Amino acid sequence: MKKSPGEFQLIARLCADLPRGKRTRLGPGDDCAILAPARFAQLVTIDSMVEGVHFKLEWGSPQVIGARALTVNLSDIAAMGGVPTACVVNLAVRPGLDMAFFDKLYAGLREMAVATGVDIVGGNITRASQLAITVTLLGDGRDGILRRDTAHPGDAVYVTGTLGDAALGWRILDGKIRARGGVRKYLTDRFLKPTARLAAGRALARMRPAPAAIDISDGLWQDLGHILERSCAGAEIDADAIPLSTLYRALMGDDLELALGGGDDYELLFCTPPRLSDAALSRRLGVPVHRIGSIVAGSAAVLRRGEAAQNLKVPRLKGWDQLRTPD
Amino acid sequence: MKKSPGEFQLIARLCADLPRGKRTRLGPGDDCAILAPARFAQLVTIDSMVEGVHFKLEWGSPQVIGARALTVNLSDIAAMGGVPTACVVNLAVRPGLDMAFFDKLYAGLREMAVATGVDIVGGNITRASQLAITVTLLGDGRDGILRRDTAHPGDAVYVTGTLGDAALGWRILDGKIRARGGVRKYLTDRFLKPTARLAAGRALARMRPAPAAIDISDGLWQDLGHILERSCAGAEIDADAIPLSTLYRALMGDDLELALGGGDDYELLFCTPPRLSDAALSRRLGVPVHRIGSIVAGSAAVLRRGEAAQNLKVPRLKGWDQLRTPD
Repeated sequence: MKKSPGEFQLIARLCADLPRGKRTRLGPGDDCAILAPARFAQLVTIDSMVEGVHFKLEWGSPQVIGARALTVNLSDIAAMGGVPTACVVNLAVRPGLDMAFFDKLYAGLREMAVATGVDIVGGNITRASQLAITVTLLGDGRDGILRRDTAHPGDAVYVTGTLGDAALGWRILDGKIRARGGVRKYLTDRFLKPTARLAAGRALARMRPAPAAIDISDGLWQDLGHILERSCAGAEIDADAIPLSTLYRALMGDDLELALGGGDDYELLFCTPPRLSDAALSRRLGVPVHRIGSIVAGSAAVLRRGEAAQNLKVPRLKGWDQLRTPD
Repeated sequence: MKKSPGEFQLIARLCADLPRGKRTRLGPGDDCAILAPARFAQLVTIDSMVEGVHFKLEWGSPQVIGARALTVNLSDIAAMGGVPTACVVNLAVRPGLDMAFFDKLYAGLREMAVATGVDIVGGNITRASQLAITVTLLGDGRDGILRRDTAHPGDAVYVTGTLGDAALGWRILDGKIRARGGVRKYLTDRFLKPTARLAAGRALARMRPAPAAIDISDGLWQDLGHILERSCAGAEIDADAIPLSTLYRALMGDDLELALGGGDDYELLFCTPPRLSDAALSRRLGVPVHRIGSIVAGSAAVLRRGEAAQNLKVPRLKGWDQLRTPD
């Protein structure tokens, strides 16, 4: 499809004056970007943020949206223990947004790219009825690579940070839960400005044997399910060990629904023999780490609270008609 | 954003039983795909096809749409003289399409991937209001790499195939031009089922010096403009030398509008010293090649027809308000 002058201008603006690492031989402006040969195994991930599905414009500045579009991909690289290197960006542009909006969105994307050592090496613009930002991010496994399929019975299950804050922030932004002032800001920032645990991922990738790992983007229970499915194992999780922020507890009490199933945390879940204390692991990873349970034989994920065990099913794939809006 | 069971099922269907080359160490199913270290310079491109913008569902089968989403990216690799290797796919899914539709779309995508040696190594599904398929394709430059910025005065300008057929096909599909039977089929197929000139691109990449090249996706005049802008050169083009198909001539006569500006041809334009005849170049590239003009000093593109010279401006970047529907 022939591009309009406006589309070319948007591409030019996205790509103007980008800092460039040594790996990038040719950035935007040709049919493809050219990267130097890769000494290490390459990681590739793609993720998309769609207006009205993943965010609303009134929830945050364009900068925040731009940065977040890269962060959700950075988190996938972090979950594999990789070092992010280069990305390409597809921007679907709807009517009603002006160049000032895109300049801000690009600024957020570029600042996050610079902060994490990522070269933006190419882009594409298309018209659409919804704003959408799709990023493909490349990385390398110079420290080793973490996978989902290497959890073994006897491993302990750990998570970084606290869980459920982002899901709570999403519900506050969406008007489903009320919060004000600092509480609102902390929780909504946890949704809008997640942190990709890149340094923690690399520290894990240097451990031997390499831990199994995943980022918690779909919710602890669902992402744990991915680990168990790929590793052909089960897990016992201690409900009381799931790390919750003070503000989560203040709003939700002991209700673990959002911590277990809320999504958007972008923390890491990993499984490794319990050789180190939580404190020692936290120091090594540079982020708070909590042990929440153990990998066991079988295929079930069991949630225990005190004496009571609750056998929560690992999510099953259901029919197409299940494609639905989030709870 | 937490994924629904339907979204997981779609990803699983896209990625099931994919053939896999030696480069792919881990395909879909983890946070990232893992590719082997790359001996050659890497090429990266991203392109997107959006329903209602680039295609309508009633224009072709889901298989055709799936195949075309990969082909438009393959053409970018071809234009750099590269060998396509691996891709990731982002599918934006709107309500009202069933699994049978996506199975067919995937079948078209997968068949094209197999035919061109591409591993589909990852995917992402999101809900949206418009169907959109965004593909990031990787390739390598094992034979050398073609760029847009290496055209020099004295080079001849060549194109592969014939121009304007796809734009004509688009207008037939869109009801703007009438055609029936074999005429309709030939021209609409040129839009719906373009051929990425991969073998021709590789043959060009083996020539020394490496020709300047671009694929003609935005229309000959616009894409020639990209070459001239990046190479800081001008061009003189012979209107009578622009290759037109018999059916294009039958419908359009001598009107070059669609051949010059129509887009979607996915032929290659390249610039190289005129050492070989068109026939010899055609044999080497495995596709008909026609010389259409020369690179000259300056920055203007001049279209000559007989004695008359028409100085057509290279497209200029205009304001955001120019982002518009195609002519």
